[in-house]
Amino acid sequence: MNVCSYVSIRTPSVSVNRVCVFSAKKTGNFFSFLFLCKKYDIMESAKNICEVTAMALKAVLFDLDNTLYDFSTAHKLALRAMAEYGESRFDVPARRFLLAYQQADKQLKEELPYVAACHNRVLISQRMLELLGLPSVVTPLELYETYWSTLLHSIKPREGVVELLSRLHHQRIRTGICTDMTAHIQHRKIAALGIAGYLDVMVSSEEAGVEKPNPKIFHDCLNKLHVRPNEALFIGDSFERDVCGAHAAGLIPFWLNTTNEPAPEADFRYKELHSLKELL
Amino acid sequence: MNVCSYVSIRTPSVSVNRVCVFSAKKTGNFFSFLFLCKKYDIMESAKNICEVTAMALKAVLFDLDNTLYDFSTAHKLALRAMAEYGESRFDVPARRFLLAYQQADKQLKEELPYVAACHNRVLISQRMLELLGLPSVVTPLELYETYWSTLLHSIKPREGVVELLSRLHHQRIRTGICTDMTAHIQHRKIAALGIAGYLDVMVSSEEAGVEKPNPKIFHDCLNKLHVRPNEALFIGDSFERDVCGAHAAGLIPFWLNTTNEPAPEADFRYKELHSLKELL
Repeated sequence: MNVCSYVSIRTPSVSVNRVCVFSAKKTGNFFSFLFLCKKYDIMESAKNICEVTAMALKAVLFDLDNTLYDFSTAHKLALRAMAEYGESRFDVPARRFLLAYQQADKQLKEELPYVAACHNRVLISQRMLELLGLPSVVTPLELYETYWSTLLHSIKPREGVVELLSRLHHQRIRTGICTDMTAHIQHRKIAALGIAGYLDVMVSSEEAGVEKPNPKIFHDCLNKLHVRPNEALFIGDSFERDVCGAHAAGLIPFWLNTTNEPAPEADFRYKELHSLKELL
Repeated sequence: MNVCSYVSIRTPSVSVNRVCVFSAKKTGNFFSFLFLCKKYDIMESAKNICEVTAMALKAVLFDLDNTLYDFSTAHKLALRAMAEYGESRFDVPARRFLLAYQQADKQLKEELPYVAACHNRVLISQRMLELLGLPSVVTPLELYETYWSTLLHSIKPREGVVELLSRLHHQRIRTGICTDMTAHIQHRKIAALGIAGYLDVMVSSEEAGVEKPNPKIFHDCLNKLHVRPNEALFIGDSFERDVCGAHAAGLIPFWLNTTNEPAPEADFRYKELHSLKELL
């Protein structure tokens, strides 16, 4: 079966168990995707909305950084390696390198808001060196490779990621990554995580020309998959970029809140997850 | 002497020899940069403009691709290598790969006009694979590396480039590259050409957020060098992007016409070169 049904239960009188039974009868393939809507249904129930709808679920889209792997920890390791390389190469204290990184990062995000280039470590490295009055032609490549080789060697998929992607793949639900950042490094991350075989498409903000939460990047990804927005879930860690963005683009948003932040107020429905294992 | 004078002679009664004498008296350092303005002066003389101005020349900026090395020939080699890799990897005829490349390149240039990402071979490779219905996640990296490793191994600086950069460097005239394209690959090209040691700065369209002929990219480069537009020459092969762009940004434009194209009509002054050796 190519299409798996997504059922949103909107009645307070239906318990989770009854939802399962009802849905299992309604659509032959329900049990295979129950993991995707169980908690969402409970939340819906609490809202006293009396309505039952069934729709086709054709794709699950994911954010990459901090969603499929722990970026924050790897980033700190990689930054330290970069600063230590700078210290040994130029005899400038690692602390000054880290300060220059922050300044360069800030400048580029101000100069190039909403486009992928503001994340590019080659540009950040080049600007760092310029700020420090060090040779800024070619040397940025060395800093770039120090940063990324450290990060790429340290990352691994979050718990449940491989199993979830594999399950979706076998259920023939299409999968995609929709990510801010340059395409080159995102392809390298996907290769390092070993998950390329389970993914159908990737859209980077470099390709879309805009960053999340701009709906264009979500629609570009869906267009590649030939899937309509309401036929797709989106799972990401950033409430503003991923959840609000996916909602604005018409997808069903899932918020991966691994740090247990308080849930933000929102005038639309979304499902909160604390781990991708919850979806298994 | 840190600053070398640039003299623009605008009188029909002054011969080139007299220009030299005049200028040599006027500024002690004239003979060291005569190579930069000799032909320009002749052109000026023909225009019957009676005026003599002297100004400081502090920087020479260059375009990179097809100016400092022959991009066109290397690109053809690299494309062929990419198509042959595709053929062996996916059993798709090289000719189909080349057609898909052209289509992908056209699509990206339409979708992302005026920004560096439209040149990114990772994005072009990804789109090629999508158009051919082949796996498009990670595989683009293999095509990207096949293309660039072929190109980077085949390129060498044009005749006169190393000598010219070395001469400017020793005269303490600052040098920069102002180029459309992503920063990462331009740094790799500069390293492959072996000219990094002679260059002070590089600005890519990825960093500037705009492509030539937009004046911003020229000004970003000058700002890094702390040089005013009328204190700098710009040398490039594209009449529209380099010559018109540099003129609009207030720099003194030099057109490197290695293919002996007919000179375009222009309502401003520029100098035509057929080889960078003319500047030595």
